[in-house]
Amino acid sequence: MRTQVAIVGAGPAGLLLGQLLHRAGIATVIVERQSAAHVLGRIRAGVLEQVTVDLMDECGVGTRMHAEGLVHQGIELLFQGARHRIDFPGLTGGRTVTVYGQTEVTRDLMAARAQAGLPTVYDAGDTVTLHGFDGSTPQVRYRHGGQEHVIDCDFIAGCDGYHGVSRASVPANAIHEFEKVYPSGWLGLLADVPPVCHELIYAHSERGFALCSMRSPSRSRYYVQVPPDSKVEQWSDDAFWAELRLRLDPQARERLVTGPALEKSIAPLRSFVAEPMRFGRLFLAGDAAHIVPPTGAKGLNLAASDVKYLASALAEHYGERSSAGLDHYSARALRRVWKAERFSWWFTMATHRFPGTSGFDHRIQESELDYLVHSKAASAALAENYVGLPL
Amino acid sequence: MRTQVAIVGAGPAGLLLGQLLHRAGIATVIVERQSAAHVLGRIRAGVLEQVTVDLMDECGVGTRMHAEGLVHQGIELLFQGARHRIDFPGLTGGRTVTVYGQTEVTRDLMAARAQAGLPTVYDAGDTVTLHGFDGSTPQVRYRHGGQEHVIDCDFIAGCDGYHGVSRASVPANAIHEFEKVYPSGWLGLLADVPPVCHELIYAHSERGFALCSMRSPSRSRYYVQVPPDSKVEQWSDDAFWAELRLRLDPQARERLVTGPALEKSIAPLRSFVAEPMRFGRLFLAGDAAHIVPPTGAKGLNLAASDVKYLASALAEHYGERSSAGLDHYSARALRRVWKAERFSWWFTMATHRFPGTSGFDHRIQESELDYLVHSKAASAALAENYVGLPL
Repeated sequence: MRTQVAIVGAGPAGLLLGQLLHRAGIATVIVERQSAAHVLGRIRAGVLEQVTVDLMDECGVGTRMHAEGLVHQGIELLFQGARHRIDFPGLTGGRTVTVYGQTEVTRDLMAARAQAGLPTVYDAGDTVTLHGFDGSTPQVRYRHGGQEHVIDCDFIAGCDGYHGVSRASVPANAIHEFEKVYPSGWLGLLADVPPVCHELIYAHSERGFALCSMRSPSRSRYYVQVPPDSKVEQWSDDAFWAELRLRLDPQARERLVTGPALEKSIAPLRSFVAEPMRFGRLFLAGDAAHIVPPTGAKGLNLAASDVKYLASALAEHYGERSSAGLDHYSARALRRVWKAERFSWWFTMATHRFPGTSGFDHRIQESELDYLVHSKAASAALAENYVGLPL
Repeated sequence: MRTQVAIVGAGPAGLLLGQLLHRAGIATVIVERQSAAHVLGRIRAGVLEQVTVDLMDECGVGTRMHAEGLVHQGIELLFQGARHRIDFPGLTGGRTVTVYGQTEVTRDLMAARAQAGLPTVYDAGDTVTLHGFDGSTPQVRYRHGGQEHVIDCDFIAGCDGYHGVSRASVPANAIHEFEKVYPSGWLGLLADVPPVCHELIYAHSERGFALCSMRSPSRSRYYVQVPPDSKVEQWSDDAFWAELRLRLDPQARERLVTGPALEKSIAPLRSFVAEPMRFGRLFLAGDAAHIVPPTGAKGLNLAASDVKYLASALAEHYGERSSAGLDHYSARALRRVWKAERFSWWFTMATHRFPGTSGFDHRIQESELDYLVHSKAASAALAENYVGLPL
């Protein structure tokens, strides 16, 4: 089999890239280790920056997102028992975010890819391997249906996440990794109950962080910060709701509607960046190259901006025979990545309560939150990062 | 001897308080353990917020400050070899800072106190003790000229710094202390050479932090971050200038004029807050209650705002027979203190290179500086803190 760009991974990064390249007349094959159902079963983030919304539109898959997505004009910060609103349009010259689950983004992109008749190989399992990307004839190989398959291509796009084979295929001495592991996790619960608030509530309390989020007006997603060794089996639904309640203000407590969990899982809190993001004819995008703690809702949005840069660079290569875009891809993507890493790190540190922190640290944290909501400049800095810095 | 307010410590906090109370018709006696010459010999900060400038004017001691002080409209941030200017008036609606050495502030206040014939006891040494401030008849006692002296007073103002007797006189269980010690010091050198730049340069480099500051157009004050166990004797003038040079950009290196040190000393980097700031009839102000690392130039300015709050509260007590101001003093002062503590901590963490930090931490630091100078909101947050948050 031969294609122009072999994409490893059929999550939102890979699918978005496939769609953008298709619209630029560039052929792709996507190889995914999991099944389509498994990919759709992952519950992930749900806050889209304008940049990501625009990209969905550019791919021609924005219809359902605009119909069902919820435009949010702000978030609420809760600390010392009181809520304070951060008004996005007022602080950023009219910008907003759109709440639309990553699962829905993936579903829309999958449907568009199927409709266009573009090839996607699911269930490739652990058999995917990358070859020759340091030369001029890269290959992606995998086994499927008992047979060895080879995709000859011009470029490989590694969109297969943190645990994927793409980054792992790069020689260790060619890559520089930066990492911070936060001594906590997020226990998330999805339930078909109306959200406690029409906007997201980021709650800081002495018991730890909590987030009141949603997927739709009838489906809520809540999180509580838990110790890193917590197991999801230790948390009954009741225990989750009780802990969440303790981290909220009286009004939210009163309004909170509980219900059985549709899904419950623990996500680690980790910051990670691999540099560079290009190795010869292999380009990394999204979680394959970087991870952010979920606090700033930046994971999916960073994947989208990587893919946007990469698609333009590839279009430039095929259309204008210029390698400038490809040559600058890594530096360009990393500049935005580090800005989002900084924001995600800062927002995590400002709102969580970590073990080993001192009384001084806690006072600084409260002062930071107090300053944040009372200074227009500080509120604007939070808002402009949350809605997404310009590309 | 009897007075209304006994002030312990004749540094800028004590002298400023004495002057404000004098103008409100309230009698004071100041007791200082050191000699006047020793107090004047201390080389300290030199950046005054507008709030502090206004307070000097209110005390009637602003003439020389306005004549000789340098109004600064911004600072320069140097990192990754390039300088970026933070424009204070443009970002804060016209506000600036005034560079005028703490020594000069002290000298002007001392002269005014002497001229007004107000009593100051110098050289009280370690004999000063505080009594009865938990009741209604506080006393300050000290030995001088071989004799025991007693000052009976209504209130005691503890303006005697971090190592002073005032905070140490409070029972340990009545006070809550918050502290952070940074694993570095600032080696400072004062020299009669023209400053390398007409504004302050805050320099972040892989070798550590440096600050190019000044006291006048012909007197410079430079600092380099050094390990906490560094001894001033280890640093010849030449070694200091060589290290400073390595942390500057090529243009600054070229313009740097070196000369013999008039003074050279190492200051620790410490954050410290004692809560509350009132214990019965004893009120702490300035360094007696809190220490900031010098990065944000907030030490003297916080002392000034404490004293401003305390002087109004005492005037309210004597003039209107209301204890409201005195009752709110601690909470009011601490709110501003913690804002300045947060800023000083943040600015220190953003610009220094500390041992034990990771590659991830360094990238975050560079991203923070990069974001800071390229985002108007982030620049405005820095500027509004640097020129001083409103009282």
